[in-house]
Amino acid sequence: MFNFITFCDYAGTFAFAISGIRLASAKQFDWFGAYVVGIVTAVGGGSVRDILLNATPFWMEQPSYLIVSGLALLFVIAFRKYVIRLNYTFFIFDTIGLGLFVVVGVVKTLDYGFPMWVAIVMGTITGSFGGMMRDILINEEPLIFRKENLYAIACVFGGVVYYLCTLLFLPPALSQFISAASVFILRILAVKYRISVPVLKGEEN
Amino acid sequence: MFNFITFCDYAGTFAFAISGIRLASAKQFDWFGAYVVGIVTAVGGGSVRDILLNATPFWMEQPSYLIVSGLALLFVIAFRKYVIRLNYTFFIFDTIGLGLFVVVGVVKTLDYGFPMWVAIVMGTITGSFGGMMRDILINEEPLIFRKENLYAIACVFGGVVYYLCTLLFLPPALSQFISAASVFILRILAVKYRISVPVLKGEEN
Amino acid sequence: MFNFITFCDYAGTFAFAISGIRLASAKQFDWFGAYVVGIVTAVGGGSVRDILLNATPFWMEQPSYLIVSGLALLFVIAFRKYVIRLNYTFFIFDTIGLGLFVVVGVVKTLDYGFPMWVAIVMGTITGSFGGMMRDILINEEPLIFRKENLYAIACVFGGVVYYLCTLLFLPPALSQFISAASVFILRILAVKYRISVPVLKGEEN
Repeated sequence: MFNFITFCDYAGTFAFAISGIRLASAKQFDWFGAYVVGIVTAVGGGSVRDILLNATPFWMEQPSYLIVSGLALLFVIAFRKYVIRLNYTFFIFDTIGLGLFVVVGVVKTLDYGFPMWVAIVMGTITGSFGGMMRDILINEEPLIFRKENLYAIACVFGGVVYYLCTLLFLPPALSQFISAASVFILRILAVKYRISVPVLKGEEN
Repeated sequence: MFNFITFCDYAGTFAFAISGIRLASAKQFDWFGAYVVGIVTAVGGGSVRDILLNATPFWMEQPSYLIVSGLALLFVIAFRKYVIRLNYTFFIFDTIGLGLFVVVGVVKTLDYGFPMWVAIVMGTITGSFGGMMRDILINEEPLIFRKENLYAIACVFGGVVYYLCTLLFLPPALSQFISAASVFILRILAVKYRISVPVLKGEEN
Repeated sequence: MFNFITFCDYAGTFAFAISGIRLASAKQFDWFGAYVVGIVTAVGGGSVRDILLNATPFWMEQPSYLIVSGLALLFVIAFRKYVIRLNYTFFIFDTIGLGLFVVVGVVKTLDYGFPMWVAIVMGTITGSFGGMMRDILINEEPLIFRKENLYAIACVFGGVVYYLCTLLFLPPALSQFISAASVFILRILAVKYRISVPVLKGEEN
């Protein structure tokens, strides 16, 4: 189980960093700038969560997140002509990571003694704020709030599913697996069937 | 007194959230994205203050701020054609909230043992950084630093007035009321008479 | 030694604030908005470091950073026609500040018990995130990740040099001086010879 979770963690970090690095390269960032955007995309959500929880940011406890982000940079540099063909693989990795990150955010928040509604918010922040910070850095309106099929909603959904599992007294590991799988499945279905949250019509539309 | 303060807090949160949601809708954000922008506008300033003070962010201690922001979203969805007619009401609510938020920021900072000048800075951050974060999220240059009539200056003014009240040994509740009223009145006058801080002329102007 | 370090600290703060204020004035910010951008440029990197380290932000412990930033604002207002002629002086002050800020970030992080790789990251954040936050506030893509000659790389380099000095058991004050000088020299050389990190070529280039 440890190896599977570690694999999901690294695969998600890699895919999150790749998304930041690719968008930075489209904006003519230099290698180091793209690396920073990749790191922020990968660890930004968890960092905001840890700052709000008053915990030591998780990536400061082991260098693996910066190393995996560095590998993502090397990957884009070395294989840039082939990166676009791997879109589907990156999407799967991204979605695996999303499920894991949401669950990690929910569990850590509960461990810190906060109620379930705060945990659901923190799971959502963990999964979605890295992408939001990426879009702020590259000076674009946040994609996840405009065109991404249920990206943030899948995070909320995963938190609610975790809550329902605890109401059923399921063991923690099973609750975590079901919650992560819920995020994964909802997000896959939303992309496949192009389901998205309606655009908010303003007074001028 | 408790009910009046709670009313001001909720009215201000509602009006701050409305301003974020309306600007997000003008940028074609989806419902969830607009909700996030609304929340960030309403609680962002206080969150930055609490992070700098090393306090638990206030909105994590009770769900009311997220609920009031959710009501603001529903309000914009349900009454979007009429929202524009309520501009004056929203402005009054926003200004009431501004006064309260500044005082809350000043008092909390003093409670944490910081000197008065830090408290004035934190009052200003509490009142103005939510709007700044809103404008970053929707990818606009911060309005409060460019066109808003003395928005941030009114926050500083409220802090200074609080300081003057303490020099006069006024009781805390009275100092707080006078400070919040000062913010309210200065802001109302600045909007009415279109008073604003001069634009900084650069070397190219 | 105390006076020299204090001079470097104030000169760096002044130059960082000047860079924020000048860019804000080019965007038609008002005086107060330009002041805020100046402060964020000067203290933003150290604030992010202190929040991540769970330390009290350094500028909340003495008002000198806000005062020096205020002097920078007055300087731009009073001498705006002559500011452009001082570009070289500002560049030297900025680079002196960069060297000092990196070393302060490295040393403080080690004092908080973190390993050397975290210290190098924090030194880099201390030196470079203020400029990044400045560019977010004025709604531009971060300059330091696109066109600045080895700005962020010089921060990393300074941290690595500090690490090498500790491997040689040099006394702390000497290690700090060599590290700050390394940042200064690398940055001066990079600007003089227009050395920069290559742009990351994306799949579309």
